[in-house]
Amino acid sequence: MSWERFKQYHLEQQDLGFALDYSRVAFPADFLQNMEVRMQQAYKDMAALEGGSIANPDEKRMVGHYWLRNASVCPFAEISKEIQDTVEKIKTFSAKVHDGSIKGSKGSFKNLLVIGIGGSALGPQFVKNALGHPDTDKLNVFFFDNTDPDGMERTLSEIRNDLGQTLCLVISKSGSTPETRNGMIEAEAAYAAAGLDFGKHAVAVTGKDSQLDKYSRQKGWIEFFPMWDWVGGRTSELAAVGLLPAALQGIPIDGLLAGAKAMDALTRRNVTAENPAAILALMWYFCTDGRGSKDMVILPYKDRLELLSRYLQQLIMESLGKELDLDGKVVNQGISVYGNKGSTDQHAYIQQLREGIANFFAIFIEVLSDGEGKPVEVSPGACSGDYLHSFLLGTREALSEKGRGSLTITVSRVDPQSVGMLIALFERAVGFYASLTHINAYHQPGVEAGKKAAASVLELKSSIYAYLKANPDKNFTVDTISENLNVAEKKELVFKLLNHISANSRYGVVSSQKSPFYKNIYSYKTQR
Amino acid sequence: MSWERFKQYHLEQQDLGFALDYSRVAFPADFLQNMEVRMQQAYKDMAALEGGSIANPDEKRMVGHYWLRNASVCPFAEISKEIQDTVEKIKTFSAKVHDGSIKGSKGSFKNLLVIGIGGSALGPQFVKNALGHPDTDKLNVFFFDNTDPDGMERTLSEIRNDLGQTLCLVISKSGSTPETRNGMIEAEAAYAAAGLDFGKHAVAVTGKDSQLDKYSRQKGWIEFFPMWDWVGGRTSELAAVGLLPAALQGIPIDGLLAGAKAMDALTRRNVTAENPAAILALMWYFCTDGRGSKDMVILPYKDRLELLSRYLQQLIMESLGKELDLDGKVVNQGISVYGNKGSTDQHAYIQQLREGIANFFAIFIEVLSDGEGKPVEVSPGACSGDYLHSFLLGTREALSEKGRGSLTITVSRVDPQSVGMLIALFERAVGFYASLTHINAYHQPGVEAGKKAAASVLELKSSIYAYLKANPDKNFTVDTISENLNVAEKKELVFKLLNHISANSRYGVVSSQKSPFYKNIYSYKTQR
Repeated sequence: MSWERFKQYHLEQQDLGFALDYSRVAFPADFLQNMEVRMQQAYKDMAALEGGSIANPDEKRMVGHYWLRNASVCPFAEISKEIQDTVEKIKTFSAKVHDGSIKGSKGSFKNLLVIGIGGSALGPQFVKNALGHPDTDKLNVFFFDNTDPDGMERTLSEIRNDLGQTLCLVISKSGSTPETRNGMIEAEAAYAAAGLDFGKHAVAVTGKDSQLDKYSRQKGWIEFFPMWDWVGGRTSELAAVGLLPAALQGIPIDGLLAGAKAMDALTRRNVTAENPAAILALMWYFCTDGRGSKDMVILPYKDRLELLSRYLQQLIMESLGKELDLDGKVVNQGISVYGNKGSTDQHAYIQQLREGIANFFAIFIEVLSDGEGKPVEVSPGACSGDYLHSFLLGTREALSEKGRGSLTITVSRVDPQSVGMLIALFERAVGFYASLTHINAYHQPGVEAGKKAAASVLELKSSIYAYLKANPDKNFTVDTISENLNVAEKKELVFKLLNHISANSRYGVVSSQKSPFYKNIYSYKTQR
Repeated sequence: MSWERFKQYHLEQQDLGFALDYSRVAFPADFLQNMEVRMQQAYKDMAALEGGSIANPDEKRMVGHYWLRNASVCPFAEISKEIQDTVEKIKTFSAKVHDGSIKGSKGSFKNLLVIGIGGSALGPQFVKNALGHPDTDKLNVFFFDNTDPDGMERTLSEIRNDLGQTLCLVISKSGSTPETRNGMIEAEAAYAAAGLDFGKHAVAVTGKDSQLDKYSRQKGWIEFFPMWDWVGGRTSELAAVGLLPAALQGIPIDGLLAGAKAMDALTRRNVTAENPAAILALMWYFCTDGRGSKDMVILPYKDRLELLSRYLQQLIMESLGKELDLDGKVVNQGISVYGNKGSTDQHAYIQQLREGIANFFAIFIEVLSDGEGKPVEVSPGACSGDYLHSFLLGTREALSEKGRGSLTITVSRVDPQSVGMLIALFERAVGFYASLTHINAYHQPGVEAGKKAAASVLELKSSIYAYLKANPDKNFTVDTISENLNVAEKKELVFKLLNHISANSRYGVVSSQKSPFYKNIYSYKTQR
């Protein structure tokens, strides 16, 4: 790679301490020019979106996440005011929690339990990890981000003695996400077991009049924060979903908002060569032939950014992984995303990236400042941070040598501003890429199918259990139960459910073997 | 999918509480038969490996990780004894740490800081998370798994006041891994700053006569455990690398070994239809056309198994991601691996898996037992664990409906036995797949390139800094420095290094801009 090419394709933004190097993607000289007409359309689509169009046509919704960090660009005065009011309310509420004027039944809050999943957990987890520090965090933050009872029990075991000083945030846009609802009920049960009123320790972040909104108000929870139907879950980090837990942890949320606002200002302009979100989208398009033919490997060389790729997995894959385009044509779009952190991942899979199947492009995240700690000299003249930075540069060279393309995003340091910038950068790149590939980035129709299938599985399980209970001490096989329940076409599911039922003693159903074995005989044992 | 096909391709092992369903991969009826000759060769290769052949020809090494859990299959009496002695030594040492007869300078050990990277961290992290619990852990376990000074500082800030009761394990097979060496030096500095003798709190796990071995003995560390050249880093979880931190944490390591031994016994047999490791390898082969054409998405529906896919990323990608086959032919093999946990990941990227680009196959990990906690009813007749299991089954259906193939591995519960089984299962599947694709699974030639490149980057940085320091208070550009140092062909690197140098005040080098900008002017400021 030549210095001339590097200078040509090194997009710098001095005032933001930000740069994007795209010289190591081997696009031909006329690629950007050839894409410019479509890119200009993408700017227009984005301008319409920011102007309040129904940019999510399937769900007939506006897409307003860019308004969150600059309410003045929002064309609707009422929404603009609500955004500003919510930020103020978050700050006021957090300050009261910190100064103890809002407290738990056993004293000032010292823990925060965030109950949410997907967009209601990935952003808060990423930001917690990127910007938190044990010496400065005002609350210790824990998560229920699944419906695994064992996982929740383990988390509770860390805070069980302090539930009276633990604040719970229940975050669900729809207010009816089963995992989050279950997490809330498990938390309620733990507070009840400790003789505490859950509602006196709980805050809701949810849509107006949702199931959770009604429930939490009826139960007299401490406070309520809005989610709006014009913000998607995966772009809600800078709504109350993300700002509230961050502010409670003690992270300066104004910095997050300012960073995102500045990146928005930079990436709103329709001058492609100066717009890093446009360049990112175009490079994704080039690298993956506009159809996801290569995976995106995200490699931040910084422990604090370890959860970035997991956050981006949702933002990118849920936004771009679509069956149909905007005209209803089957396109099966998407880009697969993975990665953890460098240099750790070098010891996991750089072997394959350098020498194995060339099915990816890499995005390095380079952080210039090593951090605030006192540097230790680990070899003559060099500190650990020099090694970390050299590993990034060395790996970048090693991939280039083998013709593996990469992009490098540079930020001065990991702080609220740069985290806000990264969030805004990728949000807009996703929007642009969706325009380039003519898809709706803002819906997720495929998620419903699994949920519906799961609901019907739960129903079938109830039927099976009810049937066994109604016929105690009799022996059944998968075949006889399925036929008696008239679900002979679902024998595999019946088998799978019987395995789970008989593996958990609460059901009182025993199996002739402890193993998942389809010849097993099952019976409900009368309780004595 | 039919019940008949399910029964035919549901491989059950009653005594292990284990099953592998491969009915949802759409291989044709004659696929297994067509592969049988090659599969029989894979069994022969594996038998030779277990018999002590030089199965890693490039490094001229035996590959003995299967001996670790059953020393009696090891053909070398001396090695066999060393394996058994090491397990005993791990148990004895851990018991002494637990009963306080080995202790730190401020009292009994309560923390464990593991310093390692790659195979010396991913296995310990996976097992810590899978089998630990705050109520039963005998030590709190922390990791330095990178050379990020900021990350290490943050970890230290959690234990800084208790360093006198913190045991450090420094794990490096080669004994010269830079990240691990840097971690050790940073830890040493922290102990010294606290007025403590690091050596009195440190244990080494490393190869005989390695740099670390010599250093630790010279410094009089507490204890030393061996790593052998016939165990690769990524298959070292059941050597001292993994067993020692697990035992210190309080995890019953006999269970881990017994589970692996049992899975080895099952998967050593050359009857393909009864061998889950063989079936796994064959399904990987079918799904990816024997050349990694699809990604492997690992979806354990259990919080405790969240780090499994990260562990498998290394095991699979570093083993299979190879440029050359055993005959030296360029093949660029590999399979990309990613995933976290269900149902959490459903809210991140199931949208793309179901509807987007069909560039993957999924491996579901199903755990039948919900765990030991008291179940909470979250809806009539159903607990959180019922939802978790239903989401797995629902998602599995939702993927099948769209023609996305999946495998399902079932275990009764997450315990040391099943974790040992999973490790052994995937280790052997990787070995079989390597035979089927005619590659060496046991070396990692591509890792060296990045390391060498990094070392030369570090050298260049020293030259740049020395030059600036020798010419204080003078202004230079990337161009002038590069030319004066006779590295005009490396201007991009020089620019990148100057960015890092000027972003960290310890160098005393200032730049005309705070931003990564190639027109910047740099100068070393004389210290006053």
